[in-house]
Amino acid sequence: MASTIQEGIHMQAHILVAIITLAALLLYFVMAIEVGRARGRFGVPAPAISGHVDFERVFRVQANTLEWLPLFLVSLWLFAIYWSDLVAAGLGLVWIIGRILYMTGYAKAAEARSLGFLIQLVATAVLLLGALGRLIWLAVAASH
Amino acid sequence: MASTIQEGIHMQAHILVAIITLAALLLYFVMAIEVGRARGRFGVPAPAISGHVDFERVFRVQANTLEWLPLFLVSLWLFAIYWSDLVAAGLGLVWIIGRILYMTGYAKAAEARSLGFLIQLVATAVLLLGALGRLIWLAVAASH
Amino acid sequence: MASTIQEGIHMQAHILVAIITLAALLLYFVMAIEVGRARGRFGVPAPAISGHVDFERVFRVQANTLEWLPLFLVSLWLFAIYWSDLVAAGLGLVWIIGRILYMTGYAKAAEARSLGFLIQLVATAVLLLGALGRLIWLAVAASH
Repeated sequence: MASTIQEGIHMQAHILVAIITLAALLLYFVMAIEVGRARGRFGVPAPAISGHVDFERVFRVQANTLEWLPLFLVSLWLFAIYWSDLVAAGLGLVWIIGRILYMTGYAKAAEARSLGFLIQLVATAVLLLGALGRLIWLAVAASH
Repeated sequence: MASTIQEGIHMQAHILVAIITLAALLLYFVMAIEVGRARGRFGVPAPAISGHVDFERVFRVQANTLEWLPLFLVSLWLFAIYWSDLVAAGLGLVWIIGRILYMTGYAKAAEARSLGFLIQLVATAVLLLGALGRLIWLAVAASH
Repeated sequence: MASTIQEGIHMQAHILVAIITLAALLLYFVMAIEVGRARGRFGVPAPAISGHVDFERVFRVQANTLEWLPLFLVSLWLFAIYWSDLVAAGLGLVWIIGRILYMTGYAKAAEARSLGFLIQLVATAVLLLGALGRLIWLAVAASH
């Protein structure tokens, strides 16, 4: 009984970060669907990934987000597990907002992607360096 | 003693999903090796990723699977942890079958990739939306 | 009190692997920044990902590392959780060294990437097959 309650509390402790994770993946899912639609709209059949600059920008929205997903998701969870669930979820929300701005900006023009990119970069960097700092601190504390 | 047994049971609870995860990664590993072999077969030396349409299809098998791996793996584990290990493992098996059909189909022709792609898409969508629905339900239940 | 100590020990058991994970992601972060710098240096503005062979090699360093990150990170953690934290962390360090050699080699010439690539491939294969073997062994043992 006690262990069931404890496990329940432990699981609930990460529900927020888990929901943020799935919301981020849903956004990424939308980007992947957009690439398929852009293939038809701009006449770039598979397996080509170039040939029309408007298609390439839509393609790069998904590709760049994929490139950053491991950095973001792994840092998000290590931050949540070893430090703070709530802070991690908040930074995850900032990342999602940055990625939405990046997606809508890049679809218009390559230059319009910068603000959203910067926002998600800062959120990722805080999660990554925050988790790393916390873990080194824990490792040093454990060795004393 | 009790904690060792409990930990053992807890670990065994995810063994199935862990094996499915590694089987999916082994399949992805095979796709990556195929790209290296296709470089030689179709005369597309690194760092180029285009130049021969037969190479590009083999390359896109791996690239597209990579694009979907974060969606699949993260959804698989959140579904397993917060809901059902067995159902997650079953859907993971469906995903693997879809990806094998996708790989063998796409290697023949771009059009022949659709069935396998659809199968893995449905498996991923059920895992993602199932996990999200379950987590929102848990969050609402926890706030009561 | 007891559960806090146990949880503390449990967390500390994975601190090494968590630090290796973030170190690997930091290296990948550097590769991503290098792509951005190479865009300016070799005159390949976004969204293009080809056009200058020196840029393409820098781009492929990041892209290939991304292609291997799911294989590496997931195998690393499953090996650590189900088998040995220390051995996983050691193999993770080997992977990082291989990837540094790969990055510096590939930046010079496409041929100079082979040694580093081989080192990270072996580390990944040992982690993946080791974790899979261990899990199958645990599954068989559990069914007896």
